[in-house]
Amino acid sequence: MSPKITVELLRKLRQVMKGSKYVAEPIQAYIIPSGDAHQSEYIAPCDCRREFICGFNGSAGTAIVTEQHAAMWTDGRYFLQASQQMDNNWTLMKMGLKETLSQEDWLISVLPENSKVGVDPWIIAADQWKTLAKALSSAGHSLVAVQQNLIDAIWEDRPARPSTQLSALGLKYTGLRWQDKVMQLRAKMAERKISWFVVTALDEVAWLFNLRGSDIEYNPVFFAYAIIGMNSIRLFLDEKRTADPVVRDHLVLTEPSKAELHVECLPYQRVHDELQAVCSTLGPKDKVWICDKASCALTQAIPKMHRAPIPYTPLCLAKAVKNPTEIQGMRMAHVSSHMHTPPHIPKGTVTEISAADRAEELRSQQKDFVGLSFPTISSVGPNGAIIHYRPLPETNRTLSLTELYLIDSGAQYRDGTTDVTRTMHFGTPTDYEKECFTYVLKGHIAVSAAVFPNGTKGHLLDSFARAALWDSGLDYLHGTGHGVGCFLNVHEGPCGISYKTFADEPLEAGMILSDEPGYYEDGSFGIRLENVVLVVPTKPKYNYRNRGSLTFEPITLVPIQLKMIRSELLTQKERDWLNDYHRKCQEIIGAELERQGRKEALDWLIRETQPIM
Amino acid sequence: MSPKITVELLRKLRQVMKGSKYVAEPIQAYIIPSGDAHQSEYIAPCDCRREFICGFNGSAGTAIVTEQHAAMWTDGRYFLQASQQMDNNWTLMKMGLKETLSQEDWLISVLPENSKVGVDPWIIAADQWKTLAKALSSAGHSLVAVQQNLIDAIWEDRPARPSTQLSALGLKYTGLRWQDKVMQLRAKMAERKISWFVVTALDEVAWLFNLRGSDIEYNPVFFAYAIIGMNSIRLFLDEKRTADPVVRDHLVLTEPSKAELHVECLPYQRVHDELQAVCSTLGPKDKVWICDKASCALTQAIPKMHRAPIPYTPLCLAKAVKNPTEIQGMRMAHVSSHMHTPPHIPKGTVTEISAADRAEELRSQQKDFVGLSFPTISSVGPNGAIIHYRPLPETNRTLSLTELYLIDSGAQYRDGTTDVTRTMHFGTPTDYEKECFTYVLKGHIAVSAAVFPNGTKGHLLDSFARAALWDSGLDYLHGTGHGVGCFLNVHEGPCGISYKTFADEPLEAGMILSDEPGYYEDGSFGIRLENVVLVVPTKPKYNYRNRGSLTFEPITLVPIQLKMIRSELLTQKERDWLNDYHRKCQEIIGAELERQGRKEALDWLIRETQPIM
Repeated sequence: MSPKITVELLRKLRQVMKGSKYVAEPIQAYIIPSGDAHQSEYIAPCDCRREFICGFNGSAGTAIVTEQHAAMWTDGRYFLQASQQMDNNWTLMKMGLKETLSQEDWLISVLPENSKVGVDPWIIAADQWKTLAKALSSAGHSLVAVQQNLIDAIWEDRPARPSTQLSALGLKYTGLRWQDKVMQLRAKMAERKISWFVVTALDEVAWLFNLRGSDIEYNPVFFAYAIIGMNSIRLFLDEKRTADPVVRDHLVLTEPSKAELHVECLPYQRVHDELQAVCSTLGPKDKVWICDKASCALTQAIPKMHRAPIPYTPLCLAKAVKNPTEIQGMRMAHVSSHMHTPPHIPKGTVTEISAADRAEELRSQQKDFVGLSFPTISSVGPNGAIIHYRPLPETNRTLSLTELYLIDSGAQYRDGTTDVTRTMHFGTPTDYEKECFTYVLKGHIAVSAAVFPNGTKGHLLDSFARAALWDSGLDYLHGTGHGVGCFLNVHEGPCGISYKTFADEPLEAGMILSDEPGYYEDGSFGIRLENVVLVVPTKPKYNYRNRGSLTFEPITLVPIQLKMIRSELLTQKERDWLNDYHRKCQEIIGAELERQGRKEALDWLIRETQPIM
Repeated sequence: MSPKITVELLRKLRQVMKGSKYVAEPIQAYIIPSGDAHQSEYIAPCDCRREFICGFNGSAGTAIVTEQHAAMWTDGRYFLQASQQMDNNWTLMKMGLKETLSQEDWLISVLPENSKVGVDPWIIAADQWKTLAKALSSAGHSLVAVQQNLIDAIWEDRPARPSTQLSALGLKYTGLRWQDKVMQLRAKMAERKISWFVVTALDEVAWLFNLRGSDIEYNPVFFAYAIIGMNSIRLFLDEKRTADPVVRDHLVLTEPSKAELHVECLPYQRVHDELQAVCSTLGPKDKVWICDKASCALTQAIPKMHRAPIPYTPLCLAKAVKNPTEIQGMRMAHVSSHMHTPPHIPKGTVTEISAADRAEELRSQQKDFVGLSFPTISSVGPNGAIIHYRPLPETNRTLSLTELYLIDSGAQYRDGTTDVTRTMHFGTPTDYEKECFTYVLKGHIAVSAAVFPNGTKGHLLDSFARAALWDSGLDYLHGTGHGVGCFLNVHEGPCGISYKTFADEPLEAGMILSDEPGYYEDGSFGIRLENVVLVVPTKPKYNYRNRGSLTFEPITLVPIQLKMIRSELLTQKERDWLNDYHRKCQEIIGAELERQGRKEALDWLIRETQPIM
């Protein structure tokens, strides 16, 4: 992987930072956050501004360019990748390490007195703006909203914003009509005396209206906003979509409907002005809900006295707790997703890319397949240590009998979203590789089998995944789990299992998360074991204060390679968990393989799910 | 325990809330927080305003009185106690339960429109003021600073503020002269470009100046503030203390000293005006550090542009990491503290009170004893379920052969502070009691033996203490550990082990905390096992990214009753930990008992520390 050469780009950017064409006064620093105007994690090509300016294309990272410096902050998953993709005009700022300055502290340390720091107010979240503006002003600088994006200004062949065909999901997939979702939302608004709610996250718009698109690769979402009042629904999206009969039917645009369920479709660009117009009609006690992670531009369109920012919107919470139809869909999607076997014992012909392609091909043959849910991480040996690795022709390694192989992959089906990671060896793993694998497995089981009271927050389970690694002085620098959408984003809030989170919402029965501890040795190998798990009620021996208890049920049903396990390091309870899990894989996936007449895969499955002693 | 009758008091309070004597305009609600002007956890009698108004005397709780309602918020440790101490004019608000409204939500739900909510700005912390003011104003109400405390206004025989004799601690106890502590503090201020630092917490003043007092029972502190500049030191305390030759000598007030180490002593009441005076001389870039938990009154004395609020002060952090002299002192104090045995097999003559008195008497015979570090919790059977129980003549139960006995006690020695809890049975415990005890022990060991990387925050260890309880559907509603001062407060920040905390500082070698999981069955029994533990470096098999690992070393050395343990529920690793721990108790405490010629206690110790299989 060779770094992007950025000398010329930085020169141009610094020029527009100084010039009067886009900024009223010269700015001394410009911040390029990673997201789009909806604070999406995955973004469309037209929004890949941070990648454009520095070359680093991971999912998280913020670049800052000053007159003298250029620095990029990212987290432990990406240290290696970022250092390979950026040229030496850039300084990599390793987040999470004690010695690494925060963005504000770094700015304060490098800026001349009374500097202006610019940022696109559509790309920066309101809560980040607030923190940053405060820190900068306390040091005598100021944060400035630059309306015209300066990267767009220097980006000559910037792609257009996508506007793909939308599809409507019926009750069979959603379990709830969009009209009922709107009514439930309004009930929550009424409960909290809220008059309006601005929907800014793309997956929330998609979930609310039971619509899906493909504007962003891997994420079945589409560019849109919504403003929901107690008696009105405004949906902002590309105008040509409103002409689509599927959309018109689904949203009942064609016939007169009850006034409060009538959807008024407006152009995507109109959201800011329309929100201002709505706000100009507000009474003194009217409040508008907006996520505190929404863009600064939209947030500030609401006068402060009417603004009620919330860390997680009611849609985010409602979407996280899957209804029975969605849970059943997620189970079906996982069965579909598992109709493939690992690559054959390699003869030097299978590569990271061909193995990934083969997995995609087999998945795509299944019913309701839509596409992948994220770029497949198919990595051999040292590539496995690059946590969010994606095989490219120039890095593509061949699967062999001597190196570990890690594959993290998933797909979108119309009934659900999948995400699974397995690590395997086709020859004879070393004792050390097996030892590390076994610690990771112990961590995986510790979370998956954990019993915890109702009301427990996910971050409190994170250490369970690490205890076995910590005991031996090992660790991994990423969280243990993330929420998973149902035919939606593979990463979704508000719940996760991570030491980095703290203000998370308590786990609830019906939530679906990943459980994915790992261990990575730079230059050697990577290990990760990931299942998607469902939060379910459980009844342990006692029931303290009638609080009730929860645990996890794996939805992912893929064998965990037995030859990698040093079974003497497992407790009897852990061995029982593994044998139970493998029995379930054999039963459920085996039945479907049999139904599809996939004899070879079935034989493999039976071999790989034998109980261990 | 009979509740305090508060009809008349509430009538008087509501009268002054309406009258014009103390408030410019009538207020519709008055908040009575638990603390004093230093946000101390333990407070002097003159500051027990919340207890005065509602009767509840636990260490944490906030009362709010409106024209119609009176409500008091406290946490799980105190639900039972508070419900017994308050009459039915009061509603108990159980914090931590999902259905319990927060103070602001409750106020908003009960107040008439445009209400004024009053609070004493010296008693409320600046960060709480901010949150509350914001929530109230967003609902159309306002938070008002009432300068004269309204409880003081109706409290006829309110005690005077104490001003006890101070004592100076030499290098032998502190390991560092106060002058060196000031210089180290200034180095940290210089590093962060801070010109002034306001010391508001009593234990920080005491630690910084190596002085101790006894203004607050159980806490060797004294009422004082300090304002530290780069070239000046202002200490605010009762004037008669400045006349004390011990203080004068220790602070070098008697002879000319280097200007920047000269201590200017000023009257306690002058702090606000003096801080305002200091602030009036500031340049535009000057910043003043003050803890965000300091009083609203003092915080607002600093103009906003100069204010640099911090969650934990550098003194709080420096104090938490004990130096070798302090660690040695803490070890010695624990040996002294353990020179007593549990009460004899009871013949119906030993009560909760007499057992507590006997423990205190034996402790007080040891060198350097100063007093208890908190009121002894000595509780039999159902009283053990009142987490912060304190035996009173009317609740005093007799130790028996049929009920569990829980004793949580500690003392202040000039070299350190102790805090230990043991639970024991003098007859034959039930299987269920033993089962619960064993889960608590498993949790205690899980924390104590945990290995974790440098940089880990304490809250991430909390679930280790609960896993065994959770597995059986049990739990406890308090944190697992708190920082422990060295001849200072038995509870100190910034580190702890609790699911309630999240913005805590990482654990560091040299920090001293408690490890105290429990289990409580209302109306039946309470179990808690508490050791004070020292954070120490450890070297596991590997050392991922050279981060280094930490673990805990118990400083408390008191046997854990073997008859309460269902050893078949322990893993081999847990049994090994227990046997090692008991061997250490026998060696270290045994040697001292032998030296003191305490044959009977030594025999008991040897019996109680036999290895289990």
